[in-house]
Amino acid sequence: MQRTSETKVLRDPIHGYIHVDLQVIWDCINAREFQRLRRIHQLGGNFQVYHTAEHSRFAHSLGVYEIVRRMVYEVHALNEQLSEYDKMTVMLAGLLHDIGHGPFSHAFEAISSVKHEEFTVRIILEDTEINHILRAVDARLPQAVASIITYDHPNPLLNQIVSGQLDADRMDYLLRDAYFTGTSYGEFDLERIIRTMRVRNGKIVVKESGIHTVEDYIMARYHMYWQVYYHPIARSYETILHLLFKRMKTVYREHPEWLSDLKMFLPFLAKAQPDVHDHFILDESAALYGFTVLTTGKDPILADLAGRLLNRRLFAYTTIHNDEDIDAIRTEVALRGYDTEYYLACDQAYQRPYQPYKAGDGHNIWVICEDDSVKELSEISDIVSAIVRGKSKEDKKAFYPEV
Amino acid sequence: MQRTSETKVLRDPIHGYIHVDLQVIWDCINAREFQRLRRIHQLGGNFQVYHTAEHSRFAHSLGVYEIVRRMVYEVHALNEQLSEYDKMTVMLAGLLHDIGHGPFSHAFEAISSVKHEEFTVRIILEDTEINHILRAVDARLPQAVASIITYDHPNPLLNQIVSGQLDADRMDYLLRDAYFTGTSYGEFDLERIIRTMRVRNGKIVVKESGIHTVEDYIMARYHMYWQVYYHPIARSYETILHLLFKRMKTVYREHPEWLSDLKMFLPFLAKAQPDVHDHFILDESAALYGFTVLTTGKDPILADLAGRLLNRRLFAYTTIHNDEDIDAIRTEVALRGYDTEYYLACDQAYQRPYQPYKAGDGHNIWVICEDDSVKELSEISDIVSAIVRGKSKEDKKAFYPEV
Amino acid sequence: MQRTSETKVLRDPIHGYIHVDLQVIWDCINAREFQRLRRIHQLGGNFQVYHTAEHSRFAHSLGVYEIVRRMVYEVHALNEQLSEYDKMTVMLAGLLHDIGHGPFSHAFEAISSVKHEEFTVRIILEDTEINHILRAVDARLPQAVASIITYDHPNPLLNQIVSGQLDADRMDYLLRDAYFTGTSYGEFDLERIIRTMRVRNGKIVVKESGIHTVEDYIMARYHMYWQVYYHPIARSYETILHLLFKRMKTVYREHPEWLSDLKMFLPFLAKAQPDVHDHFILDESAALYGFTVLTTGKDPILADLAGRLLNRRLFAYTTIHNDEDIDAIRTEVALRGYDTEYYLACDQAYQRPYQPYKAGDGHNIWVICEDDSVKELSEISDIVSAIVRGKSKEDKKAFYPEV
Amino acid sequence: MQRTSETKVLRDPIHGYIHVDLQVIWDCINAREFQRLRRIHQLGGNFQVYHTAEHSRFAHSLGVYEIVRRMVYEVHALNEQLSEYDKMTVMLAGLLHDIGHGPFSHAFEAISSVKHEEFTVRIILEDTEINHILRAVDARLPQAVASIITYDHPNPLLNQIVSGQLDADRMDYLLRDAYFTGTSYGEFDLERIIRTMRVRNGKIVVKESGIHTVEDYIMARYHMYWQVYYHPIARSYETILHLLFKRMKTVYREHPEWLSDLKMFLPFLAKAQPDVHDHFILDESAALYGFTVLTTGKDPILADLAGRLLNRRLFAYTTIHNDEDIDAIRTEVALRGYDTEYYLACDQAYQRPYQPYKAGDGHNIWVICEDDSVKELSEISDIVSAIVRGKSKEDKKAFYPEV
Repeated sequence: MQRTSETKVLRDPIHGYIHVDLQVIWDCINAREFQRLRRIHQLGGNFQVYHTAEHSRFAHSLGVYEIVRRMVYEVHALNEQLSEYDKMTVMLAGLLHDIGHGPFSHAFEAISSVKHEEFTVRIILEDTEINHILRAVDARLPQAVASIITYDHPNPLLNQIVSGQLDADRMDYLLRDAYFTGTSYGEFDLERIIRTMRVRNGKIVVKESGIHTVEDYIMARYHMYWQVYYHPIARSYETILHLLFKRMKTVYREHPEWLSDLKMFLPFLAKAQPDVHDHFILDESAALYGFTVLTTGKDPILADLAGRLLNRRLFAYTTIHNDEDIDAIRTEVALRGYDTEYYLACDQAYQRPYQPYKAGDGHNIWVICEDDSVKELSEISDIVSAIVRGKSKEDKKAFYPEV
Repeated sequence: MQRTSETKVLRDPIHGYIHVDLQVIWDCINAREFQRLRRIHQLGGNFQVYHTAEHSRFAHSLGVYEIVRRMVYEVHALNEQLSEYDKMTVMLAGLLHDIGHGPFSHAFEAISSVKHEEFTVRIILEDTEINHILRAVDARLPQAVASIITYDHPNPLLNQIVSGQLDADRMDYLLRDAYFTGTSYGEFDLERIIRTMRVRNGKIVVKESGIHTVEDYIMARYHMYWQVYYHPIARSYETILHLLFKRMKTVYREHPEWLSDLKMFLPFLAKAQPDVHDHFILDESAALYGFTVLTTGKDPILADLAGRLLNRRLFAYTTIHNDEDIDAIRTEVALRGYDTEYYLACDQAYQRPYQPYKAGDGHNIWVICEDDSVKELSEISDIVSAIVRGKSKEDKKAFYPEV
Repeated sequence: MQRTSETKVLRDPIHGYIHVDLQVIWDCINAREFQRLRRIHQLGGNFQVYHTAEHSRFAHSLGVYEIVRRMVYEVHALNEQLSEYDKMTVMLAGLLHDIGHGPFSHAFEAISSVKHEEFTVRIILEDTEINHILRAVDARLPQAVASIITYDHPNPLLNQIVSGQLDADRMDYLLRDAYFTGTSYGEFDLERIIRTMRVRNGKIVVKESGIHTVEDYIMARYHMYWQVYYHPIARSYETILHLLFKRMKTVYREHPEWLSDLKMFLPFLAKAQPDVHDHFILDESAALYGFTVLTTGKDPILADLAGRLLNRRLFAYTTIHNDEDIDAIRTEVALRGYDTEYYLACDQAYQRPYQPYKAGDGHNIWVICEDDSVKELSEISDIVSAIVRGKSKEDKKAFYPEV
Repeated sequence: MQRTSETKVLRDPIHGYIHVDLQVIWDCINAREFQRLRRIHQLGGNFQVYHTAEHSRFAHSLGVYEIVRRMVYEVHALNEQLSEYDKMTVMLAGLLHDIGHGPFSHAFEAISSVKHEEFTVRIILEDTEINHILRAVDARLPQAVASIITYDHPNPLLNQIVSGQLDADRMDYLLRDAYFTGTSYGEFDLERIIRTMRVRNGKIVVKESGIHTVEDYIMARYHMYWQVYYHPIARSYETILHLLFKRMKTVYREHPEWLSDLKMFLPFLAKAQPDVHDHFILDESAALYGFTVLTTGKDPILADLAGRLLNRRLFAYTTIHNDEDIDAIRTEVALRGYDTEYYLACDQAYQRPYQPYKAGDGHNIWVICEDDSVKELSEISDIVSAIVRGKSKEDKKAFYPEV
């Protein structure tokens, strides 16, 4: 593996510095598909709530890479047990895990037939700069990197590093999102978590003495979900995005010529399988410019919804307890002259209650106890046990235009 | 003056919270011209150096407003001497002082006949949402706000609050840029500066006991300039921007049809006086999407330069000591087949040496000494005196494609 | 109430500044009984675990005062409902609530017949500088201040501000202890808690929208207890202190002449009721110097125990599950030649499981819900409910000399 | 060299963690002479100004050790050029460099014939726990460690690491004192300084690209001196200490029996050469308890001065411009009935103007320029040059009882 001439460092508020000393990492960072992530916000509509949440998936991806790098070199057992090739592979997987994201990925899937996770794999495996860089190192490298991202690598440790319950991805985004929103909710002691990591039976575990730090991390996650990610104003923004894309699909079917200027969206409306080039073009700048064009377009619903997104005239919201609640709102919104197909949405899609630990899957957090037994976290943490057993917190809301 | 029903607060990592309790401030924040600032990066090309410098002029503008608000209420003399109307006016001026910025403002002035400062005034005075909001309070308010921004308000205190040497604008951006780049260079004790501010002879002064804090602020500024704002990589990005716009002007003259898809730029190329609506449309998303379009356009130079900006294939640079240095580089770049008109620039425009204190103008920092005399800062600070008298630090560089 | 000539400020890392503008507060800070708190560590033996936990009760007391000050002026309802006299009284109570602390208060109560809470009241009411300062303002003021500290003030709001479940005392010490230990466990958003406080039915409540911040505070408390306050090494130190004082009592009974040099401890050994002057003399410097004297004294047990405290030769510890465990350890320690009366202790005294919410008492945290009903925190917070209902975390340990 | 069974870590707010993996380091930390440093404040009287400046020389010494450790392992050239034995030696020197400090060292030298630097060497070389621990490793180790502390080690790199102009000692105390006072003055980018360190011609140098960080460090130092270390209130406290010890010497000569209870001070008054055991006994607790005893002693001047120190009744101060100023104050203080021998001091001793760079000595900061030449910092930094050439800032003050 070729090293860079000297360790390259990138200043980062979360990690102090991002350290790069493999040439292939440096080349991937400079590849156009990776640079494109500068033009995708990490938190989508959340900057509508926390006005400083303006950081990109580019910065987050570097952060994930840095945590993976520290794990594979600083966790003694990982450093010993993983080959240099595997270390390189998992660092690449950390770096590239989000490369398939598009603008407002979740809402956008209303019109796109390809999910962002698929694009991630395709960008790694198909004809892209990233793929050429990886293949120049080794022909099997793209597949190896992709298999970690899809949680299919034969070495389960590598999968866990990138996508477990205590993985580099989550640890970076909690810390980063906390820093950039300016809340303290997402803070926890990354240093100590890394220090207490061990390997047992092919699983990454934490020492019992580090359990309080892990509880802190779980709480950080819990709070970030409810205070930031599921904030109703962010969901209001996401709802409008969703409705706009839904409307766009209808308009494309009925009046495709009305959308002729929106070249960035057309491949996704027209093709069954948009390709990686179509994906490359559609960054968040393109989408936002598309919205600007829509504000003066022929379809009044698209024009209105796009203007709402650009100028923050968001939907109001009401907590929904039963179907009658929704019906009542629907009637009222319709009476006020709105097409409820595009002016009312009930946020069920994002309501996933917080259930961190699905019994039996490989994503649990494991703790190595003082007596050397390995237990699942909620077995020995009262706090976590309470969260797991507690009734799921739900928050069903309807979103619609303010009176 | 109408107050909001309760104080509205926006979480902010620099100030803790931004506090709003005047309705007119809240309405301006929600006006579309202000919301547009979310789509303009505060630091232009600097995120190419500091990858987390992704914050917007929206956040900065809120921060300036917050510092102005604290100054007018917390500096005893300002609180006493300013009317409530003047306080509102200067808070609005702080909030709106950057509203005329476009994408990559400085480079963009290569094609635009209107400077961003002019647009700021026009957005306040012409037919915009902002203007309507201000006029609904009082017909003279737009003019009053604009006059502070142009440093022409009859009450010199108001001008100084927004644009002095120790003004709300600089204090916010130094702190904010330091936070978002992750450097410690821009940090200084805002709290203490506000606490030591007084008013003497119609001037804002600081108490001598606060002089170390002001020295710290001056040093913060000095370091931020050389470590962040004038970083050669940021200047390389700015140089390419400048050359791209220069080339765009030529192409528009020679082959306007090649640019027909670039609706966001056309008014600035075509009109002697683009209007506030043209300005509104051209945010950074639009510009970046324009660059994406250019990468597949007919002009190879524009295509190449746009690709360089999007995919970070920046120019190399060399320090220039005299004309022969430039000539040598020009010859070499030409030999390598490049049109030096668009592939070589010498960064003189940004070289303004750091000269904070122009003798005789009203922008000095004044200190009230223990004997109650008022002196200019460099008279009593050895550090500042040294910076002022020291030879100007220069850094002339040529930028051109890497071999 | 006399104001200071200008607001006096004391720089503080937790609160930025401590602000004083009442002369009586300033005078109390400068009273000798308050200055003495500089010579009492806030965290007793915890600096044996966290070597930077070297802050004093002086700093903490200023911090409590500052939070009280902010509550009474910044919580709208408190500012409206409390008279200026009551505000002054409760600020004084916050400032003085710990003034009766001695060195290693809890362990010291092994020899002292007077608890530190009693001394606090006596210092306020008896012939001291503090008492003179308070009486100079108003003859009833000492009693009013003391009644808040004993939770007996007729206005329950005042009692709650200083000693509720969400009081100024706890909020300061969690933040302060976290800062000085360098852990992040104790951090929570004080700013936001104050912002969401309201008053309902004579109770301080928090708005439902602030519930996550309160959960964060409860978790901070939970973690600080287990990671810092109940850390076994700190308890080892406390245990030795306890045994040393116990031994001192025996030696005083049997060989009082062996302790004749220990003038700082004698009044507490000799008198049924040591007075406030005796208390004043015995600060932590006096106690530590006393230990130094003991290391060369006639009683070998006192000499050894004192040397252990000064030179950090702490006891080992073992988790105890039942009486047999203790018996086994006792036998072994005795076999190794130690007097188990002074070389073995089972830490039951400090084992109070964490039970924040005693049903029916006035110390609960109350939340005002969106429907305007007032509920106890654990009724609406799943996290807190889980902590309350969860089985008490216990940690019984025996402490004894390392082999 | 024996390693600890696993790396031991101590949580530290400045460095995150202090890492120990050599047994000899761990043993020295646990030696009684080192533990004694817990009972010596780092900043002497400064906690009278900054009430949270309560940290000890223990914490600082650990911090110096940690920076040395990072330098020898993370600065590539040091890691390569130094033997493991030399690395161990210099880490020990960093750890132990302050071990000879007593309470209020500078003022105390009014009565002590032995300076703290001498005690440091003696504790390392004479019959102490520290000495035994070092000798158990290697008989020459104590001398090797001591020679670094006295700047006499044959390898100049080792001397520079501990006592240069950019040494581990200063870097730790600036950062630490800033943290514990709660000021931002002392902050600078330690990470980056270490990253830019190189070795040239047997000298530690910094890369030119790191020069701004070094300027920041120099400024941090400048500000900390004037804002913290030379703060007039701290000097007032130091002055009273100095006068108290001066008076104690007189009283011991005239009425030694008045001091018979002050066993902690007697060896220093009585012996020409107090020994390391006398030194060990006299920690800050002993001194403070001694002051408490003095407040009720027979000499009224000692009683008064000691009370002033304990209860913060400090001296007032006046800036002195010439001898007449002092004479006038002396006359007035005498008129008010004070013995000016013990109630007036002019603070010349601490007035050392800030002159960091003595031409020709080995303590300069050296910079390796882009052209590979090595220059002294002030040659290439305008800021530093200005500070060096600027007129020395002086602050001569008289201290005496407030009216």
